[in-house]
Amino acid sequence: MSGHLYGIGVGPGDPELLTIKAAGILGRVDVILAASSTKNDDSLALDIARPHLKPNARVIRLGFPMSRDEGTLQSAWEENARLVLHELAKGHDAAFLTLGDPLLYSTFAYLLRTLRGLAPEQAVTVIPGITSFQAVAAATETVLAESAQNLLILPGIRDAADLRRSLEGADNAVILKAYTNFSAIREELRTFPTPTHCVFASRMGMKEQFITRSLDEAPDNPTYLSLMLLTKNESL
Amino acid sequence: MSGHLYGIGVGPGDPELLTIKAAGILGRVDVILAASSTKNDDSLALDIARPHLKPNARVIRLGFPMSRDEGTLQSAWEENARLVLHELAKGHDAAFLTLGDPLLYSTFAYLLRTLRGLAPEQAVTVIPGITSFQAVAAATETVLAESAQNLLILPGIRDAADLRRSLEGADNAVILKAYTNFSAIREELRTFPTPTHCVFASRMGMKEQFITRSLDEAPDNPTYLSLMLLTKNESL
Repeated sequence: MSGHLYGIGVGPGDPELLTIKAAGILGRVDVILAASSTKNDDSLALDIARPHLKPNARVIRLGFPMSRDEGTLQSAWEENARLVLHELAKGHDAAFLTLGDPLLYSTFAYLLRTLRGLAPEQAVTVIPGITSFQAVAAATETVLAESAQNLLILPGIRDAADLRRSLEGADNAVILKAYTNFSAIREELRTFPTPTHCVFASRMGMKEQFITRSLDEAPDNPTYLSLMLLTKNESL
Repeated sequence: MSGHLYGIGVGPGDPELLTIKAAGILGRVDVILAASSTKNDDSLALDIARPHLKPNARVIRLGFPMSRDEGTLQSAWEENARLVLHELAKGHDAAFLTLGDPLLYSTFAYLLRTLRGLAPEQAVTVIPGITSFQAVAAATETVLAESAQNLLILPGIRDAADLRRSLEGADNAVILKAYTNFSAIREELRTFPTPTHCVFASRMGMKEQFITRSLDEAPDNPTYLSLMLLTKNESL
């Protein structure tokens, strides 16, 4: 009988922010699937999950190329999906690790979609995970939304001029991957009417964690794992 | 020395979807603070947390009136905040329970804001929690957002005519508290251009859990704990 595939959200960085369910599954599966870019082999998700893994769990790195070429990406996903199905066919349960949540800006979506195309009946369970923006909100006591307010989650903004349009109609916003074109975004935000309260954070829950409520203190060239919270609600 | 206040997200329903950190704190604090409406005494958050509580933990119910009168609400929050500060002053650590996440549409925001006004230096730690919409996405393999897509979270829609305007510019959306005026909302959604994929769910993770991908199968009068996912991404 084929094994079970788990898509596991390991949360934003602190191994204690995994769910009990995620830790339980990680403690008993034999195969751990960790995405790694082809540029380097490190996997933050694996570092976070490590305290919870079964001793001698076999870790398989799945290469997801940092490419925008559709063909390159599609063939990498197919290769990875086939590799995963091959492991499952041996009867091994496997857990794919993802930073944050598996269904919110995660490589898991691409893997699962490809795998569903190849094996529609494959048993899969997705375990949600705490997102980075929830952890930043918690650390800074920032109310993400309350009462009749809405919350818009944006996946990184390349064009500063788009920012204002994107935020029209949003009471509160989370800007993920706030690193591309950051200086221009910062200048645009300075022209926003108050009250807009802002938090900038990098590498939340990790050793190099950096949080500030002042845009001036944010670095000119933030790292990939940077985000901003923009809210109508003052930090408490 | 004054005790420590924890704002704990207990997640959407399944006690295993608490974080390890939340369960650890609940296992050692002596005072559990659970919101209850003045209409009835049940607290779903308390039911979810119960397996993790220290034996003989003292549960204090905080009444939050179901009222829209600002004065009534404000005085209830002040009374509750003073009651909490009174417990903390005895040196007891206390944990306030909240369904989902403490900073996303939670009573905790009101309690914390009032408490910060009375005692700015009070030690508080917020522990994020898995939200209901993440659990519904996981159960239905619905990709909430990927790549350059955004995600808008709406807090329940009373006016069906507002729905289209709210969703303009949003690639994907979560409609929480999808129970008021549901029939009109459903009619409005039927006129939306495809591809918009829809999931309706009630009381996720609880005994009475109900999930459907067909709007026709959703009840005419859903319960308070109902939500919808609207996405560009097909369910996998």
